[in-house]
Amino acid sequence: MRFVKGHGTENDFVIVPDPGGSLDLTPAMVARLCDRRAGIGADGVLRVVRTKAMGDAHAAAADDAEWFMDYRNADGSVAEMCGNGVRVFARYLVDAGLAGPGEWNVATRAGLRRVSLGATGDVSVAMGAPVPLGAGQAAVDGRTYTGVRVSMGNPHLACPVDEPVATLDLTRAPSFDPEVFPEGVNVEFFRAVGDRHLEMRVYERGCGETRSCGTGTVATAAAAAIDPDTGTIPEGVWTVDVPGGRLTVTFDGVTSHLSGPAVLVAEGDIRSDWL
Amino acid sequence: MRFVKGHGTENDFVIVPDPGGSLDLTPAMVARLCDRRAGIGADGVLRVVRTKAMGDAHAAAADDAEWFMDYRNADGSVAEMCGNGVRVFARYLVDAGLAGPGEWNVATRAGLRRVSLGATGDVSVAMGAPVPLGAGQAAVDGRTYTGVRVSMGNPHLACPVDEPVATLDLTRAPSFDPEVFPEGVNVEFFRAVGDRHLEMRVYERGCGETRSCGTGTVATAAAAAIDPDTGTIPEGVWTVDVPGGRLTVTFDGVTSHLSGPAVLVAEGDIRSDWL
Repeated sequence: MRFVKGHGTENDFVIVPDPGGSLDLTPAMVARLCDRRAGIGADGVLRVVRTKAMGDAHAAAADDAEWFMDYRNADGSVAEMCGNGVRVFARYLVDAGLAGPGEWNVATRAGLRRVSLGATGDVSVAMGAPVPLGAGQAAVDGRTYTGVRVSMGNPHLACPVDEPVATLDLTRAPSFDPEVFPEGVNVEFFRAVGDRHLEMRVYERGCGETRSCGTGTVATAAAAAIDPDTGTIPEGVWTVDVPGGRLTVTFDGVTSHLSGPAVLVAEGDIRSDWL
Repeated sequence: MRFVKGHGTENDFVIVPDPGGSLDLTPAMVARLCDRRAGIGADGVLRVVRTKAMGDAHAAAADDAEWFMDYRNADGSVAEMCGNGVRVFARYLVDAGLAGPGEWNVATRAGLRRVSLGATGDVSVAMGAPVPLGAGQAAVDGRTYTGVRVSMGNPHLACPVDEPVATLDLTRAPSFDPEVFPEGVNVEFFRAVGDRHLEMRVYERGCGETRSCGTGTVATAAAAAIDPDTGTIPEGVWTVDVPGGRLTVTFDGVTSHLSGPAVLVAEGDIRSDWL
């Protein structure tokens, strides 16, 4: 079984090329691959399949996207989308000669995602319009933070803080009102470090603190950008520094774009006597 | 640059074949390779070099050992030896056809280490005779533990406990008397779960808790085996379960042997545009 290891701002992935969709990638195999000591190690697996090989459920998408990103979490469960994952996925396709540089769609379980990239360098992905939902609160390390609730399809609470985000203790999960966040919430902490330039850390629900989070980065830029009078998000370009690197978020009045590095580290074969 | 990823009871390594010793493996490159998110990820790098290519400092060893294990820690620093590392190193050599199954020496910065292995399966390495040094103490999670001080070249304190070792909180470093342990100490906690069968967890100095520790496993079996009347270690075979798997320790009256799985997971190339 071939694989490529790559990352986007240190969200890391094992990419498994399977153009014909013939691979039976079981949850147990995904969990073994993602094991950071007994396997390769990653936040998730990106199986690369032609959309037309994904069967009837995705037949409609095959006209608009040649490639389907079959994303799996490190525990083996199926996931819908991953903003950093789809950027690494697109870089792999161009690097392997399976797609050309330019702008095109990737099919995911959450629908089509439009990516934009050159032959090398950063990769951009359209993430949809953030939906601001008003104020919310979470408590961390004995302190209550007030922030902006933002839906990116998944729920976020982006909280401005006064101190450098590196000083926060995010060892333990934030607590929040389950009536406000019935499906849980990803909590971001951010501080302005320049003009339209933020630093951010994120505690992802069910995961703990991560080095980067695509939807969390966009939600945070949205929370910082929101016009308090109209409740809308003005057009503009924001830089967001996360522990794993630097991302750019662009609001164009219609959607949001997440842009940043997508790095391929190594490639090879999983040994057949290990699988 | 070619690489193989492997592990021994979940002590994991990036193996870099460099028979001619031509590779300039800098500390920065080792640290990048071992980065678990931005690189491949491992506890250390095993560079595989012919001993005669290691220069004058190791010329004497070249008559007794064809291969030299150039072991580096994940932070890029040079290390002398690693009991699980040398077992994975030997498995790689046999798998790659660079050595035959049987019993032979590996040269390391700590001297020659004799390994024994078949064409597949477990790998055994002679670890030297443990040196019991009397009682010692360490405090963890507000409780003081008394154990046996054992030198394996590096310092250990192996403490018997009554409760299942899984229930211990090893989040924080043990505290100890620096006059007793001037170079720090690796602290093991063990409990008998059967006849000559132990379970163990270890807090490695400078590292925190690890999934396995070769010298710690031998030190623990020695602490459990020691004859209280004579202070010596009788011949015998001990099974030690660590979080990363199962190891066997054999005392033969002269030296100790550590035996257990050495697994090769994947192989491939580090991308030249990433290096």
